[in-house]
Amino acid sequence: MAKDKKKKVQRPKALPPKGFRDYFGSDVVERQEMLAAISDVYQRYGFDPLETSGVETVEALGKFLPDVDRPNEGVFGWQDEDETWMALRYDLTAPLARVYAQHRNDLPTPYRRYAMGPVWRNEKPGPGRYRQFYQCDADTVGTASMAADAEICAMLSDALEVVGIPRGDYVVRINNRKVLNGVMEVAGLGDVEGQARERGIVLRAIDKLDRLGETGVRALLGAGRKDESGDFTDGAGLTDAQADVVMGFMSAGRDTGADTCAALRDLVDGSEMGLKGVDELEEIAALLAAQGYGPDRIVIDPSVVRGLGYYTGPVYEAELTFEILDEKGRKRQFGSVAGGGRYDDLVKRFTGQEVPATGVSIGVDRLLAALREKGRLSTKAKGPVVVTVMDRDRMADYQTMVSELRQAGIRAEVYLGNPKNFGNQLKYADQRDSPVAVIEGSQEKEQGVVQIKDLALGARLAAEMETNEEWKSQPAQMEIKRSDLVAEVRKMIARADG
Amino acid sequence: MAKDKKKKVQRPKALPPKGFRDYFGSDVVERQEMLAAISDVYQRYGFDPLETSGVETVEALGKFLPDVDRPNEGVFGWQDEDETWMALRYDLTAPLARVYAQHRNDLPTPYRRYAMGPVWRNEKPGPGRYRQFYQCDADTVGTASMAADAEICAMLSDALEVVGIPRGDYVVRINNRKVLNGVMEVAGLGDVEGQARERGIVLRAIDKLDRLGETGVRALLGAGRKDESGDFTDGAGLTDAQADVVMGFMSAGRDTGADTCAALRDLVDGSEMGLKGVDELEEIAALLAAQGYGPDRIVIDPSVVRGLGYYTGPVYEAELTFEILDEKGRKRQFGSVAGGGRYDDLVKRFTGQEVPATGVSIGVDRLLAALREKGRLSTKAKGPVVVTVMDRDRMADYQTMVSELRQAGIRAEVYLGNPKNFGNQLKYADQRDSPVAVIEGSQEKEQGVVQIKDLALGARLAAEMETNEEWKSQPAQMEIKRSDLVAEVRKMIARADG
Repeated sequence: MAKDKKKKVQRPKALPPKGFRDYFGSDVVERQEMLAAISDVYQRYGFDPLETSGVETVEALGKFLPDVDRPNEGVFGWQDEDETWMALRYDLTAPLARVYAQHRNDLPTPYRRYAMGPVWRNEKPGPGRYRQFYQCDADTVGTASMAADAEICAMLSDALEVVGIPRGDYVVRINNRKVLNGVMEVAGLGDVEGQARERGIVLRAIDKLDRLGETGVRALLGAGRKDESGDFTDGAGLTDAQADVVMGFMSAGRDTGADTCAALRDLVDGSEMGLKGVDELEEIAALLAAQGYGPDRIVIDPSVVRGLGYYTGPVYEAELTFEILDEKGRKRQFGSVAGGGRYDDLVKRFTGQEVPATGVSIGVDRLLAALREKGRLSTKAKGPVVVTVMDRDRMADYQTMVSELRQAGIRAEVYLGNPKNFGNQLKYADQRDSPVAVIEGSQEKEQGVVQIKDLALGARLAAEMETNEEWKSQPAQMEIKRSDLVAEVRKMIARADG
Repeated sequence: MAKDKKKKVQRPKALPPKGFRDYFGSDVVERQEMLAAISDVYQRYGFDPLETSGVETVEALGKFLPDVDRPNEGVFGWQDEDETWMALRYDLTAPLARVYAQHRNDLPTPYRRYAMGPVWRNEKPGPGRYRQFYQCDADTVGTASMAADAEICAMLSDALEVVGIPRGDYVVRINNRKVLNGVMEVAGLGDVEGQARERGIVLRAIDKLDRLGETGVRALLGAGRKDESGDFTDGAGLTDAQADVVMGFMSAGRDTGADTCAALRDLVDGSEMGLKGVDELEEIAALLAAQGYGPDRIVIDPSVVRGLGYYTGPVYEAELTFEILDEKGRKRQFGSVAGGGRYDDLVKRFTGQEVPATGVSIGVDRLLAALREKGRLSTKAKGPVVVTVMDRDRMADYQTMVSELRQAGIRAEVYLGNPKNFGNQLKYADQRDSPVAVIEGSQEKEQGVVQIKDLALGARLAAEMETNEEWKSQPAQMEIKRSDLVAEVRKMIARADG
């Protein structure tokens, strides 16, 4: 029995599940501010918010995923009491499909909607790869007009600038899946089913142009390619003439959209599908040019691929063009932060009807990382003014001070820990990124004054000081009239900000 | 075989899972704006945001729930690949407990945090009862100071006013669990374990004062009560003298906090626990009075019960005092929209240590419903200006118009449906709550003018008009110079708003 008593209590581990994480303080505020700014842009373009719940039936989710061809796995699922299978949504497009199918008679046509929120993937977590993350989507459902695609590209460009990516540091690239299909046709790979393997290799090769260069891509188009490690990748087995067509496609980018389109038109000559694609690109380019979105913001770029197995027309992506250092210290471009395109089977699973749609998804975490990289998150949540407690019986006095400060819009709090050790109060203020500490001992109270301390200047020294006397000797501290508290604190904060 | 072909395709149902719902347009915007306003208040009080993910391990969730004593069921759970049980969070307090236990050495002490987000309950859905809903919490962890409780009550009061509940339409009521325990002691029900049944009946009786009146409550304290339907509810079996103590407690509310505390002090005389509770109430009342939070905003009210089985000290709730009509057309007060209190075993499950904490949870949906009731959601998202398409080859012209409008901060979109039937364009604008439609046919284009139509005036007639000619005859329409588009649209919107 005595033995039993000694048994250690089994306590739960204080950890989130594997692959999940917490966001503290400024991380939360920064994301919210970024998404609010993007919402404003989307609203101005006439897009309406839609918020579905995190849970859908597995039946409704299906295996619909615009970017990736994947089976219906990788979701977190369970059975409801009535045996219905339910799962956490893995993206924001599958719920849109369900909502549009459900409410299509009541929703306006076309339906412009945006959605922001967490999605869940039941995948192996890794460094920087989480099983819950934010997505931010905008889609226009129910119109085949190229104006819808052009509009989303313009809106994407506006959104990037609004959150703090300056013009010149990003480019929105547009391609068209029909043009690529036309190129395949001209290159003799027009048989979508029969030449699926070859078409796949060509797509992946185009997608790797950045990394492998022209020689590498050409090897993959032909017999195959051996990489530095000696590994061999099978090629598509194209003849030189066929490969020339594909290489010509990738290098068809010109200085203006009109010139690029002309080059593409030559290239896909003879393919009806290809020519239709060029028409679509030209229409988009013209619409954007009329609104002043020139090649400094949006370009026609034949090298954009983006999960083309799925898209049916225009595809687009936003790349950040400024350089960062990769994990090995090498310079590279920041890369893609958003992408999307046109797809036509959004609600077909539910209704049998094809409904044309086009939409974009912004990578919230990547865009936040980019803004952090560029030092654009100046909005970092400010720490509060901390009113210290010199005399624990006068808590009401200290509460009155913070009340006055808050009414003036200044973030402020009273120290509510054990006030005995004054050094701990200063350490606390330091930990809170506090710009100003306020001190009112009984002597100050009598004289109608308070001490205010500029912690931006004094933070590093603070941790070493244990007594009020030492503290007072610091130069960043000043005595002010109690009645001037709000005005003087405001001045001190402004000084720290400037 | 032919038979097989005829088989109807099995299509998925376009519905959310039972008990889940979608939020469209202004519902999303209104909630976000309300939560943003509350965040601002919480920030100003020095509270930091914390966002945990929707998923926790079942081990970490435990059966911790501040308001309700409930078993570890009612969650949506499943097993991870490594057999760990995971579940969707059912509130925001359990994740706070896990986070605080995990990061307690790095977090400031005390730790003030707020959290807003969806929670999930695996309960039987009913009318107006959903299985996913929003919570909005603020808690201070790591201090036993009554200043923390006072602060949260003041903050709650500020938050209600900021979102649009005017002073006088709400009241924050404060009670203390220790006082109630003291009353139980004086009434001879001091044996927490042995008299659990009687204590439970007394608690529930107090909670029903509003509904049953004094006579009904007194019956429950004594032998029991038969309701109108003839059903009998067992009573606590108190003597008249014992019941007098409890009734005295409920009617101890006075005009000022000081007077209420004096009455309570008389009542719990002899109970150490009860007197400690009165001290705490007095301390809170003094702190609030010093900051100007008088009985028009915050009162000491002995009738507040709030899941007292759980709380260990002060408890508080915010009630909206204006009247609404219930489902039977009877007037009643809107009632509670927020509540909370002090609890001391937040992280004990994880660490074995008692950590004092106090916090409040706002019922997001109820508060939104109250604001809707009071007509306080004037922020309703405005529909966009709709630029109609008279000539589908001039899409670029129309896009240029919306581009100009947006740059001036005006929400605007081009009609992107099939433009052939002009009546449909007007119906669309109507459906979009559009304030203004813009019309530019080839004739207008030649003359450098456009037609703008005030849809706030013309909406009801619009659906009946099929031709441009009829449309033009409507009085709410005017011809303006193309170059004045932005200025004139702005004027027309302002007129509609005013």
